[in-house]
Amino acid sequence: MTRPEGEREIIARIRRTAGNCRDLVVGIGDDCAVYKTALNLVSLVTTDTMVEGVHFDLAWHPPVALGRKAASVNISDIAAMGGLPRFALLSLALTPACESRWREAFLAGFLAVLSEHGVVLIGGDTVQSGHEIVLSVTVLGEMAEAELLTRKTARPGDVVLVSGFLGEAAAGLALCRMGLAQEAVWHPLVSAHLDPVPQVALGRVLATSGLVHAMQDLSDGLATDLAHICAESGVGAVVTAEKIPLSPLLCRAAETCGQSPLDWALAGGEDYQLLFTAGEQQLAGLVAMVSKELGCELYPVGRLVEGRGVFLEEAGQGREISYQGYEHFR
Amino acid sequence: MTRPEGEREIIARIRRTAGNCRDLVVGIGDDCAVYKTALNLVSLVTTDTMVEGVHFDLAWHPPVALGRKAASVNISDIAAMGGLPRFALLSLALTPACESRWREAFLAGFLAVLSEHGVVLIGGDTVQSGHEIVLSVTVLGEMAEAELLTRKTARPGDVVLVSGFLGEAAAGLALCRMGLAQEAVWHPLVSAHLDPVPQVALGRVLATSGLVHAMQDLSDGLATDLAHICAESGVGAVVTAEKIPLSPLLCRAAETCGQSPLDWALAGGEDYQLLFTAGEQQLAGLVAMVSKELGCELYPVGRLVEGRGVFLEEAGQGREISYQGYEHFR
Repeated sequence: MTRPEGEREIIARIRRTAGNCRDLVVGIGDDCAVYKTALNLVSLVTTDTMVEGVHFDLAWHPPVALGRKAASVNISDIAAMGGLPRFALLSLALTPACESRWREAFLAGFLAVLSEHGVVLIGGDTVQSGHEIVLSVTVLGEMAEAELLTRKTARPGDVVLVSGFLGEAAAGLALCRMGLAQEAVWHPLVSAHLDPVPQVALGRVLATSGLVHAMQDLSDGLATDLAHICAESGVGAVVTAEKIPLSPLLCRAAETCGQSPLDWALAGGEDYQLLFTAGEQQLAGLVAMVSKELGCELYPVGRLVEGRGVFLEEAGQGREISYQGYEHFR
Repeated sequence: MTRPEGEREIIARIRRTAGNCRDLVVGIGDDCAVYKTALNLVSLVTTDTMVEGVHFDLAWHPPVALGRKAASVNISDIAAMGGLPRFALLSLALTPACESRWREAFLAGFLAVLSEHGVVLIGGDTVQSGHEIVLSVTVLGEMAEAELLTRKTARPGDVVLVSGFLGEAAAGLALCRMGLAQEAVWHPLVSAHLDPVPQVALGRVLATSGLVHAMQDLSDGLATDLAHICAESGVGAVVTAEKIPLSPLLCRAAETCGQSPLDWALAGGEDYQLLFTAGEQQLAGLVAMVSKELGCELYPVGRLVEGRGVFLEEAGQGREISYQGYEHFR
């Protein structure tokens, strides 16, 4: 979800006023904060808060899937820098409506995702809330400092890649809102919204490859997330509309919902695929290595250029799309 | 604040189901989780969530004090194990009522406490909430593994000590509720509730002294917090009512509010003083050292015994007070 102006302003203010120190490698403004621990090793830490009615709707989000998602979106931030997730903290502000069965299902989902990624729950907090469930998760990870992939180190001339189909989660959310979530045909899209999969293994392979220049995860949509990399690296980007990977099912859902599949891909957010850049000469080797090691495909969607801003090329026309959220594309 | 049964049940369930792993030194159930980083060094991590209407009331909690408290209660958890706080993450779920001036004051208070303790804000999240402000803070600390003070290592025969007057924060809250917070005479008590002071320097001195067996901070009241140490260490405790340090101002406020000062001290919570145990033979040395290094007094309030439970001795009578919250003493 693209942040309202007020939230971006708070983050910018915090970033200006927050301190700095010797052991801090990456502070506010990337997927994780990173600090040195042992020689050549860094710790990564990320936190994400989900509010009922803003980030999820209990009308269609089953507690087990919500528990999975609360873990996955944080683990995705570790994956986004190439790290190995290790430990999690879970803070629950629960309303009186969260009965014992709901809590157990939520916790089962949360712990299942941790277990899938070898992450251990080591602490947290449980408090009452009057009106809204608020879930705050913190995940700690680790990696070699030399392999760290930030948003700051993209270079003009780089190819921009994504790790999978985009817009799937936005389509799933639209289908949930239209009351179509129960139709079996839409399951992959609905699942992309309710239970996204963090790309930990791919993040590790990309980080250890030495072939990637900058990386983050796609949480706010390509238009916003690529603008982050561009702003942090001091480069511009040109994305080619025809190259953005859209699944046939997404296009079918877009027809059903009366939406544009491309708008979902650019501005929908919450896909939790990886977005990264690499030198053109390393591209073939990178694609071949990932295909061999993980059997998955990578999708080049554009290139980085000198300058600033994110431009979309569509049918020979170009337009600026930096930071544009869903509302801008309608 | 003493947790309702439902919250304790969730924590117990999480503790049973959460995993364990090689590098984890202390998991769920102490002030912080602790894991090994470098040789002989451990990282500490703690998180605390505060909900509007449950943990604070905007009617009397100014935003700058609330920002300070959100930082202090987490830093106190690091102090409670003897650690050095290093980094903080701040997650804000803010309602539309939180205007720019409110946010700035909150943030100024939060950052001021971090700065007082050399802690650096390295990340967080800012989201919208419909009805309630929810503040989740995570603080990371570090220390030598050998100096770590947990709740598990108290021994029968130990003296139980606290680091300052108890019940002050509970009295301050009662005065706020009665609309008396503006009267200058009550300022120290009101301040104890609105802006508690984490005992970081004392925690470090106690941890490095090698004379302390077990420690935690007083967040839920002596009756509950000492019961935690007893349960984790497999011992019992006898507290002597007459030895509990009560300030003259507290006794005066108790008269004004029609409350018992001892009940506030035992069950009020949120004092954020340190509660710790030490061998009787080391007591004089410990008290002298703390007096010399920090100029502050320590108060022996009881002793640990074989067995289980926390007993209060008052005027020759004993009664079990383990885990008793405010409601049990009225």
